[in-house]
Amino acid sequence: MTDRQRTSDLAIGIDLGGTSIKAALVSRQNGLVEQSTAHTEADMGPAHVLDTIAGLVRALTADAGDVLGVGVGSPGVINWERTTVSRPPNLPGWEVVNVGDELGQRLDSPLMTLVENDANAAGLGSAHYGAGREFSSFIMVTLGTGVGGAIIHENRIFRGSTGAAGEIGHMSIDYEGPIARSGVAGAVEAYLGQRFLSRQARYMLLNRRDSLIHQMAQPDLMGITPRMLYDAAISGDSGARRVLEWAGHKLGRVLGSIVNLLDIRKFVIGGGLSGAGDYILDPARHSLARSVLPALADGLEIVQETGGNDVGVLGAAHMVFQHVDERR
Amino acid sequence: MTDRQRTSDLAIGIDLGGTSIKAALVSRQNGLVEQSTAHTEADMGPAHVLDTIAGLVRALTADAGDVLGVGVGSPGVINWERTTVSRPPNLPGWEVVNVGDELGQRLDSPLMTLVENDANAAGLGSAHYGAGREFSSFIMVTLGTGVGGAIIHENRIFRGSTGAAGEIGHMSIDYEGPIARSGVAGAVEAYLGQRFLSRQARYMLLNRRDSLIHQMAQPDLMGITPRMLYDAAISGDSGARRVLEWAGHKLGRVLGSIVNLLDIRKFVIGGGLSGAGDYILDPARHSLARSVLPALADGLEIVQETGGNDVGVLGAAHMVFQHVDERR
Repeated sequence: MTDRQRTSDLAIGIDLGGTSIKAALVSRQNGLVEQSTAHTEADMGPAHVLDTIAGLVRALTADAGDVLGVGVGSPGVINWERTTVSRPPNLPGWEVVNVGDELGQRLDSPLMTLVENDANAAGLGSAHYGAGREFSSFIMVTLGTGVGGAIIHENRIFRGSTGAAGEIGHMSIDYEGPIARSGVAGAVEAYLGQRFLSRQARYMLLNRRDSLIHQMAQPDLMGITPRMLYDAAISGDSGARRVLEWAGHKLGRVLGSIVNLLDIRKFVIGGGLSGAGDYILDPARHSLARSVLPALADGLEIVQETGGNDVGVLGAAHMVFQHVDERR
Repeated sequence: MTDRQRTSDLAIGIDLGGTSIKAALVSRQNGLVEQSTAHTEADMGPAHVLDTIAGLVRALTADAGDVLGVGVGSPGVINWERTTVSRPPNLPGWEVVNVGDELGQRLDSPLMTLVENDANAAGLGSAHYGAGREFSSFIMVTLGTGVGGAIIHENRIFRGSTGAAGEIGHMSIDYEGPIARSGVAGAVEAYLGQRFLSRQARYMLLNRRDSLIHQMAQPDLMGITPRMLYDAAISGDSGARRVLEWAGHKLGRVLGSIVNLLDIRKFVIGGGLSGAGDYILDPARHSLARSVLPALADGLEIVQETGGNDVGVLGAAHMVFQHVDERR
């Protein structure tokens, strides 16, 4: 049994979100083997969500042979030991949950389980299976409902003092700027988080009656999505392009501060808004170059995550592979 | 000889500045053994400055017995191998200088030599001999002519990808803010660097005729120094206190972004302006607390460097001790 486990290169990756739960059986060498997804139904509480996760794990492991363990990427604060999730936003009723214990009670053969912040899991997934493969150290920024981040240093997650490092969305680019959910003035999330960007786009486009967004977001430019901005930008809409430039400029500014602090010059941008590609990344490159010390200006790179959302489950599974390596 | 070297706990630390060069014989166990200082006379060019450094090393090693090596803290960009200094500001004529080679040519018995950025050397000195001793991971900020910084992670300097990490003074707190020497808009140095702070103090005090600073900085409030602000603040001068609050507020903002990114929550503040103690640090603590994610708010600490400028030479020497450890 032990010998067979040692030769397994399979693990389960879970990406726990407020709306859906993605699960995958992952091969270290070949990446995704099998995937499945379920509705989170977060309002039914933690026990129901954990039942759903256990069901996904059970189905994926049923015919898989030896599986080394389960990695879970989750919103919320993760403890240093990577066992508990605390108060994840969008998951009501979760206080402090030991995910491994909870899954263990629900599975016939308990599997070693590690939890990590979802943005960190995505960063690790990018490092080993996505656009981050070409860099040994880089910063992953996930532009979604909020703005998540991960520091990948020498192919590993930099976790800081308590495991909470990488909260790029809460770094400030204006000490007198708009207040984000976190209470931080000028936090990047208050510019690039979906709700904030949607509002900003509305302000910028209200008087541009020629913009295609007026047909897409009705009535009255409410609920503008990144996808609308991207589609309009591709169609040549100058208003939508201007909004994405505005957003890219803010992104470049915070990346510049990160370069000056960490001397890490490679960035991988994922999440919904990254779908806008160079319409947002070119302005970010431009403002990044003007936001770093001249001595740090060589070798700056901002690339789009090509692995899409899969990097979340892949990185979650990869935590298991790294953990097994360390114990050898 | 080899055995005697192995048992030596002595190294030379050099702190190379634009005005003066500080040198010290340092014992790993006991810290400073002997100190000396010389004028840099930077306008006489690199060969003269290197002659002066070699003279200081020669004098300190003459009766010291075995010395493990020389550590040099220098302004400018240091390469990854810690052998060269590139274009240090305030040292005219220096292009790329291999400090070990240059010292080797000037000494009868060449000593292993390591160079490091001066702010990083100060951080390492604080970690092992100064206020940083109580923290395994912390950020050192040096408030001098410019604003320097160092990331100390698990008692070592975090050097980034090329050795240039820690440039906190060039992180931005306002993407539309004043332009610092580096060209970065809203860089912290454009608020807390000596020249910028002096100008800001002048603006803030011009119409406060009751401020003691009007007697200290004549004519017309030119050349206000951190020391003047501190002396006036101690004497109860509300104008000077207001300026230091303004400065502390800006400092707290950038420290908040660092906490959110790195999950390192301890800060040691050194350099001339840190002499203002709680007049600047209390406002920094206040704004720091409002600049971090609520989940990261526990355990924040900002302390004043108590080792003064000595941490520069001590940290430079300590690089040698760490290097010898690694080779064992």
